[in-house]
Amino acid sequence: MTTYKLLLLPGDGIGPEVMAEVEKVVGWLRQAGLADFETERDLVGGAAIDVHGKPLADETLARADAADAILLGAVGGPKWNGVAYDIRPEAGLLRLRKDLGLFANLRPAICYPALADASALKRELVEGLDIMIVRELTGGVYFGEPKEITTLEDGSKRAVDTQVYTTAEIERIAHVAFDLARKRSGRVASAEKNNVMKTGVLWKEVVTRVHAEHYSDVELEHVLADNCAMQLVRRPKQFDVLVTDNLFGDVLSDVAAMLTGSLGMLPSASLGATDARGTRKALYEPVHGSAPDIAGKGFANPIAMIGSLAMCLRYSFGLGEAADLVEGAITRALAAGARTRDIVGEGQTPISTAEMGDAILREL
Amino acid sequence: MTTYKLLLLPGDGIGPEVMAEVEKVVGWLRQAGLADFETERDLVGGAAIDVHGKPLADETLARADAADAILLGAVGGPKWNGVAYDIRPEAGLLRLRKDLGLFANLRPAICYPALADASALKRELVEGLDIMIVRELTGGVYFGEPKEITTLEDGSKRAVDTQVYTTAEIERIAHVAFDLARKRSGRVASAEKNNVMKTGVLWKEVVTRVHAEHYSDVELEHVLADNCAMQLVRRPKQFDVLVTDNLFGDVLSDVAAMLTGSLGMLPSASLGATDARGTRKALYEPVHGSAPDIAGKGFANPIAMIGSLAMCLRYSFGLGEAADLVEGAITRALAAGARTRDIVGEGQTPISTAEMGDAILREL
Ligand SMILES: CC(C)[C@H](C(=O)O)[C@@H](O)C(=O)O
Ligand SMILES: CC(C)[C@H](C(=O)O)[C@@H](O)C(=O)O
Repeated sequence: MTTYKLLLLPGDGIGPEVMAEVEKVVGWLRQAGLADFETERDLVGGAAIDVHGKPLADETLARADAADAILLGAVGGPKWNGVAYDIRPEAGLLRLRKDLGLFANLRPAICYPALADASALKRELVEGLDIMIVRELTGGVYFGEPKEITTLEDGSKRAVDTQVYTTAEIERIAHVAFDLARKRSGRVASAEKNNVMKTGVLWKEVVTRVHAEHYSDVELEHVLADNCAMQLVRRPKQFDVLVTDNLFGDVLSDVAAMLTGSLGMLPSASLGATDARGTRKALYEPVHGSAPDIAGKGFANPIAMIGSLAMCLRYSFGLGEAADLVEGAITRALAAGARTRDIVGEGQTPISTAEMGDAILREL
Repeated sequence: MTTYKLLLLPGDGIGPEVMAEVEKVVGWLRQAGLADFETERDLVGGAAIDVHGKPLADETLARADAADAILLGAVGGPKWNGVAYDIRPEAGLLRLRKDLGLFANLRPAICYPALADASALKRELVEGLDIMIVRELTGGVYFGEPKEITTLEDGSKRAVDTQVYTTAEIERIAHVAFDLARKRSGRVASAEKNNVMKTGVLWKEVVTRVHAEHYSDVELEHVLADNCAMQLVRRPKQFDVLVTDNLFGDVLSDVAAMLTGSLGMLPSASLGATDARGTRKALYEPVHGSAPDIAGKGFANPIAMIGSLAMCLRYSFGLGEAADLVEGAITRALAAGARTRDIVGEGQTPISTAEMGDAILREL
């Protein structure tokens, strides 16, 4: 059996707590003979700043580059709020994405049936919701240059960010979206602001061409990003695969996640290009943040982190059945009433992070 | 009595239909002796492209500049989808905003009690919702240069948009937000992405300083734009005044509008600086678009347009009582059951645009 090299980067806040639960599942998969893993741990984010003075040490990046896949917990917290822009905890995450070329961010927004009522939306709007947001992750305003603040003669300042997209960057993310749609309902919506942004004009043009040339079996719809945000609230189930740029993807995926009522439970995958040997770099992380307010208390929800491992099994190792198994165990644990504090309903007793991990293990 | 010069720019789609209802209300205000208006009409958007070959003729801009206030319907439609980026209908709107210096876009998101159930959100989350979004409107990625698409040697393309903010631009929009908060609940939330964008870093820095120097009586909270979008869905009533940049404001105000269940009913004001004579340029328009699919059918909802006139009375002419009167008439017409098709509930019979206008007139 292949031994996969997994790099674990627990990070800050609740990151280490939820990562501990993933390690239990990794242990179970190994024992069950479903997959073999060699795991390594390293620091990222604030934890790395404390030790190395920066959020991602070069040796950590080298380890990440050598790994078959990376699992990341979360980065950041009030402790590092005062640090300079370039060494803040998030910078480690952004560098990982950029230097490993993880251009395709997959963010499923699904509504766990047991939690439909936890959504802010009405049940009929959210029940059965299953959207796959495909967010471009290494381009756009996150990385374009110039990105700077200059001080003018009169002492006032001028800040600049630059959003850049090239044909090639849009093509490759469009392929990811269309390929995913083929395995799902066959529908893609592409969101931009071509009425205001030139990057939106090019985005729409390239997505339209890739569609016409390679995916005429898939249904494509263009939607303005502001309208898309509205539609996500109004009638979210109209969407299946939703492809968009880095910044709109950041906002829209958070709206979609919140709608499901399952925020704190949603995983994500950030994938690179597939190389000649058929392998691709990949990082998996929860959509939620480091939640410093509840860190160390042992009641964080580990489901997003365990779900991220499931995505890793599916997208990095082609172990679709093992992924289904883990995802099924999460669904069953919820159906059986396991609830951490963030999702506890009236009359239910919340369980701890470790107990939720155990509840999922029991369903495996 | 002062005679106010109002420029009416009905625009495209349902714009002319809803503008007709505003004219009825203007007539009523004149007859009731509450205000005197001199109204002029002109073309904007697609309607102007058809006549002048561009979405905003220079003479229209001159008229807008000379007017005491502008009421705009909506621009755009499929007819002009193929036209070049720089002469598309929206370009007229953007030029009006920019050339008249309308930097402060006020977008109230209120939930009409009669319509709380029309929201996608649960009633308890949305009932009584009353947020004032203050969106910066003449800066950011909408207008920064370079903004271009270049063709590279290999035939592929590269698109660039530039987001620029200066200290002065942020200061003046911050003042608008804090001043408004003083007349409301005294709370401001400021949304940006300082963890990724340098404009976000400067935004946060300047808002923090303006607050400390002039508004220590107001409560200020900073929130990341992606988290803000989430919070709007999760617990919208936590916000009172929400100040943000042009692009985030575009998306966040649409989310907020949709939440209220009253989309199609929300007005907006775009204000310039107050000059030495105490006057300021201002444009008022519905948040909704030109809705080409229902244009010409006579069943568009005129409430957002009439509400925009009410904002005009309040912010341009200091006629707060007349504004209250118009807004009260809208609320009463709704409470009395007047419903256009977009907001009709089960067992209710929809009325036409003109009938809704009349229903509001009756309540005046
Ligand atoms: C932490 C931050 C830099 C990051 C982003 O903006 O991409 C986060 O919001 C996310 O969505 O993963
Ligand atoms: C029509 C478009 C240019 C405009 C914008 O993006 O500002 C609209 O969405 C708005 O919010 O007024």
